Amino acid sequence: MYRTHNCGELRIENANSQVTLAGWVQTVRKFGAITFIDLRDRYGITQLLLGEELNYLLDENPLGREYVIQVTGTAQERTNKNPNIPTGDIEIHVQSYTILNKSAVPPFTITDETDGGDDLRMKYRYLDLRRNAVKKNLELRYAVNRSARNYLHENSFMDIETPFLIKSTPEGARDFVVPSRMNPGQFYALPQSPQTFKQLLMVSGYDRYYQIVKCFRDEDLRADRQPEFTQIDCEMSFVEQEDIINMFEGLVRRIFKDVKDIDYTEVISRMTWEDAMWQYGNDKPDIRFGMQILNLKSAFNRNNQIEATGELINGAGFGVFDNAETVLAIAVPGCSEYTRKQTDELTEWVKRPQIGMQGLVFIKCNADGTYKSSVDKFYSEDKLKAIATAAGAKAGDLVLILAGREERTRKATSELRLEMGKRLGLRKENEFKLLWVMDFPLFEYAEEENRWVARHHPFTSPKPSDIATMINNNPVIDNPEKYLEHPYSNIKANAYDMVLNGNEIGGGSIRIFQRELQEKMFAALGMSTEEANHKFGFLLGAFEYGAPPHGGIAFGFDRLCSILGGSESIRDFIAFPKNNSGRDVMLDAPSEIDEKQFAELQIKLNLQ
Amino acid sequence: MYRTHNCGELRIENANSQVTLAGWVQTVRKFGAITFIDLRDRYGITQLLLGEELNYLLDENPLGREYVIQVTGTAQERTNKNPNIPTGDIEIHVQSYTILNKSAVPPFTITDETDGGDDLRMKYRYLDLRRNAVKKNLELRYAVNRSARNYLHENSFMDIETPFLIKSTPEGARDFVVPSRMNPGQFYALPQSPQTFKQLLMVSGYDRYYQIVKCFRDEDLRADRQPEFTQIDCEMSFVEQEDIINMFEGLVRRIFKDVKDIDYTEVISRMTWEDAMWQYGNDKPDIRFGMQILNLKSAFNRNNQIEATGELINGAGFGVFDNAETVLAIAVPGCSEYTRKQTDELTEWVKRPQIGMQGLVFIKCNADGTYKSSVDKFYSEDKLKAIATAAGAKAGDLVLILAGREERTRKATSELRLEMGKRLGLRKENEFKLLWVMDFPLFEYAEEENRWVARHHPFTSPKPSDIATMINNNPVIDNPEKYLEHPYSNIKANAYDMVLNGNEIGGGSIRIFQRELQEKMFAALGMSTEEANHKFGFLLGAFEYGAPPHGGIAFGFDRLCSILGGSESIRDFIAFPKNNSGRDVMLDAPSEIDEKQFAELQIKLNLQ
Repeated sequence: MYRTHNCGELRIENANSQVTLAGWVQTVRKFGAITFIDLRDRYGITQLLLGEELNYLLDENPLGREYVIQVTGTAQERTNKNPNIPTGDIEIHVQSYTILNKSAVPPFTITDETDGGDDLRMKYRYLDLRRNAVKKNLELRYAVNRSARNYLHENSFMDIETPFLIKSTPEGARDFVVPSRMNPGQFYALPQSPQTFKQLLMVSGYDRYYQIVKCFRDEDLRADRQPEFTQIDCEMSFVEQEDIINMFEGLVRRIFKDVKDIDYTEVISRMTWEDAMWQYGNDKPDIRFGMQILNLKSAFNRNNQIEATGELINGAGFGVFDNAETVLAIAVPGCSEYTRKQTDELTEWVKRPQIGMQGLVFIKCNADGTYKSSVDKFYSEDKLKAIATAAGAKAGDLVLILAGREERTRKATSELRLEMGKRLGLRKENEFKLLWVMDFPLFEYAEEENRWVARHHPFTSPKPSDIATMINNNPVIDNPEKYLEHPYSNIKANAYDMVLNGNEIGGGSIRIFQRELQEKMFAALGMSTEEANHKFGFLLGAFEYGAPPHGGIAFGFDRLCSILGGSESIRDFIAFPKNNSGRDVMLDAPSEIDEKQFAELQIKLNLQ
Repeated sequence: MYRTHNCGELRIENANSQVTLAGWVQTVRKFGAITFIDLRDRYGITQLLLGEELNYLLDENPLGREYVIQVTGTAQERTNKNPNIPTGDIEIHVQSYTILNKSAVPPFTITDETDGGDDLRMKYRYLDLRRNAVKKNLELRYAVNRSARNYLHENSFMDIETPFLIKSTPEGARDFVVPSRMNPGQFYALPQSPQTFKQLLMVSGYDRYYQIVKCFRDEDLRADRQPEFTQIDCEMSFVEQEDIINMFEGLVRRIFKDVKDIDYTEVISRMTWEDAMWQYGNDKPDIRFGMQILNLKSAFNRNNQIEATGELINGAGFGVFDNAETVLAIAVPGCSEYTRKQTDELTEWVKRPQIGMQGLVFIKCNADGTYKSSVDKFYSEDKLKAIATAAGAKAGDLVLILAGREERTRKATSELRLEMGKRLGLRKENEFKLLWVMDFPLFEYAEEENRWVARHHPFTSPKPSDIATMINNNPVIDNPEKYLEHPYSNIKANAYDMVLNGNEIGGGSIRIFQRELQEKMFAALGMSTEEANHKFGFLLGAFEYGAPPHGGIAFGFDRLCSILGGSESIRDFIAFPKNNSGRDVMLDAPSEIDEKQFAELQIKLNLQ
């Protein structure tokens, strides 16, 4: 036995007992002839006291940071207790120690605030993982995992493993593929999600399925994406949207309770996709704060109408507004006294390439009831007051207005709203606001290909009331310019996203479960019957043998953990993440393979 | 809401309540004007009674097997109760039903004993999964999963996910590889196990890790192998072999209790690898029965000596024995009265190519104390008696003797023992016998390459007493004929396998945790320093920064489930298995990929 206790375990009750501990040397401090060592393991830190009589041993076998040692001694009550750590009442009066393994000097400090840069910490990930900050993230991840499994188990869900070596069915994201040695010339694909398998399990009668499972997408990586990521993947039979919403609100409430000790008892609000886009400019609003968008003028196809509410601003001779497709405003609370420098900085902010606007118009709603704007020469104070009031501004607020093409302007206004919320401290790390976004469009128009693509995925059911529209209309888009007038633009999906603090943490839908409708969906996406049968024949076939109504949801496990952990980066919550080029710099993977492997797989490189 | 109850839930207490159920039509039976339907879902079967007044509906919307329907009615006490099913006290007097989905006639019957052949059931796996026999297997699998997670959680293990897109380090089995689009010319590999990652997690101080995780090996498939399989993968720090054995005996006892309601309280016996080979002819003995092997003569290098105990049989002029490298016997209880036909059949059995022996010698130990043998002309009755007695035979037993080359003969005798055990009903499905096999050789000699390979894997530690032998001897094998005389042949590993009913269900080892020893190990396997650094530099590097002593184990989850479920085939316990060519015949995967994919990955086919 290497130890009688771990380093986080000893308390005052253990005083005077003989103990053996093992762990890492965190610090070595000399006080005169006495040496203090903080010994660390996963469970905590225990102070060791090495008296003068051990100095000969320290001379012979000196100890350094991150050395692994085993010590034997007695636990003693401390004179200087440390109330900051659970073991702070005792220390070990060491009788002897053994060095189990030495350590070179680590390339960065193993402390909460480390001096190591990103690249170095990725290369030495095994050392970065020692840091308390990272360890806490992985512990949180495990707590979420455990909480989710318990809840799902108690609700009769079964964990059923689905295969990883499946069939490549490119539609949506790019597949990672795996050459098959036993079937030369053929490839497996790694699953982008277990979508079709969980649907087959419903056809098989398993009723409630779940899995916490790795998924793979070969996409160009942004900072918050990984080529392999984890989903909490769930599916239920004989359910309507409301059943799923209830079940998974329960899951998320349970996770809040188990992991954060938060009783999230408030009603989880719901918003249509249209309202989200209209009021917040994106489909995953952060509702921890208001500052909703005022649509002064818009090309957005809201409630199936092209709305134009430009009466307040049009015709004043201000060409930027007059000529803009869309003009959007937000009222930023308490910022009417922004200086010229501050409004200039905001103007620069919206002009950055990531935001891409030409400029920013502001109206200061002064505390004294007057209004001051950057477009004073076009608008009377009454007009300014009317606009500001419509934007929900009160005295002391600053109204920010963006104008331009619909899509870019709306996105920019959304970003500006989030930025101002952040600057004003309205996006509190410890406040959590859940939201369902619902009634998404079923289809999106893919300009390059002049066809419809599934917004969620091709297995999502339209709203029952829209099924006739889908069946009775030809999906072909005659006039790409006017795709919004095609009936398919108005078809809503039986789909729902769960949003937490402005992040989509989960998304799902009620599925199509009838062969005819599924075939119609594939046809709507431009697939020929042969293609549909080749790619998804097994699913179409399964629907012939008594498929039940079913639906489900998948949570982005990495993202969920990062938000609960108060971080923007999912990488901090993955033990061995990859960088933005999809590389594991610790392993140095991917890497070349040898000739024998190429020969066995019957493939060769074809570098461009 | 599609249902108020599921089909396994209603009891006599629910009589007279209004209910709505949904499920599959299992059977439709007419009794005069009344129709009885068995409605099935995951939870059970409920009887529906459709009175005469619904016949018009049945005429309009006839019901067939596997139709999915929703019914509303009242639960009523049955006159003919069915004690065989939990819902057997009630039936539903149906007021109305809706067909949610029709079903074509299934290609085989959805019953415990189905008429579908293997191929058909694999193709329509989603229907096969409906059968109770298969559903029970997946339920057992989930129960084992849940039990293992609970035990490991209670013992402070943390589930930490390790990556799937890693580095190809061919050594041992063949890797599946994944071309990287973002890093043209380079490939990821899919993990054969998370071995190095779990070791890194120990270096990182996580102390107790587990994962139930998919692993991948691109090997030619035998009936009981799958290209993707699942492990319960565990690792612990600051442990010796005994700590691991205790912890994982606990795990298996817990699984027995939770899943099979068996109190496996007996001591789990231990056997050295040498004893296993000597007494049972293989390294995973089925100890549910005795019938141990008598080594009449052997080239097996037991206890570091070439033993030859041929005095009983040599020199009698029977060339087969005189010239054989090895002669082995088993005493089969109660079979002395086997007829000529029966012994001939056994002779044919050992001559089959899978066994590959030239013939079989037998000695009948008759009830009257006489002995009769197929080699009477060479051996006196006294000699026969001496041999039979040495083999442990009693009056009434049949001694079976095989002779030939050591390896083949030992394997054949082991197979013959298992076959006789099976025929005599000694391998009872409901009896479970656990066993640790320990002290494996660290190295195996690879004839083709004339070098050592790691029997377990290159991270397994030698026994402390053998470390000096390893360090002080040159691994090069000068005389391949006499590799058994090389000191490396005698080095034992700090490794252990857990065996259940003759199957290896888990295996592990104490790991090397010092850079020097790990380098020596790589060198022993014929790896150059560059190669070792290229493949495993991250691990060697990690060992420089305070690696703790550690060890672990991995259980074959599919196999464990199949044994607990009383089946020989792991496929029956996998939701979507592949066939012997690695194909998923339901998906028709692997399959061709399209030109765009080849172009993006910058590879092409090179078919031979």
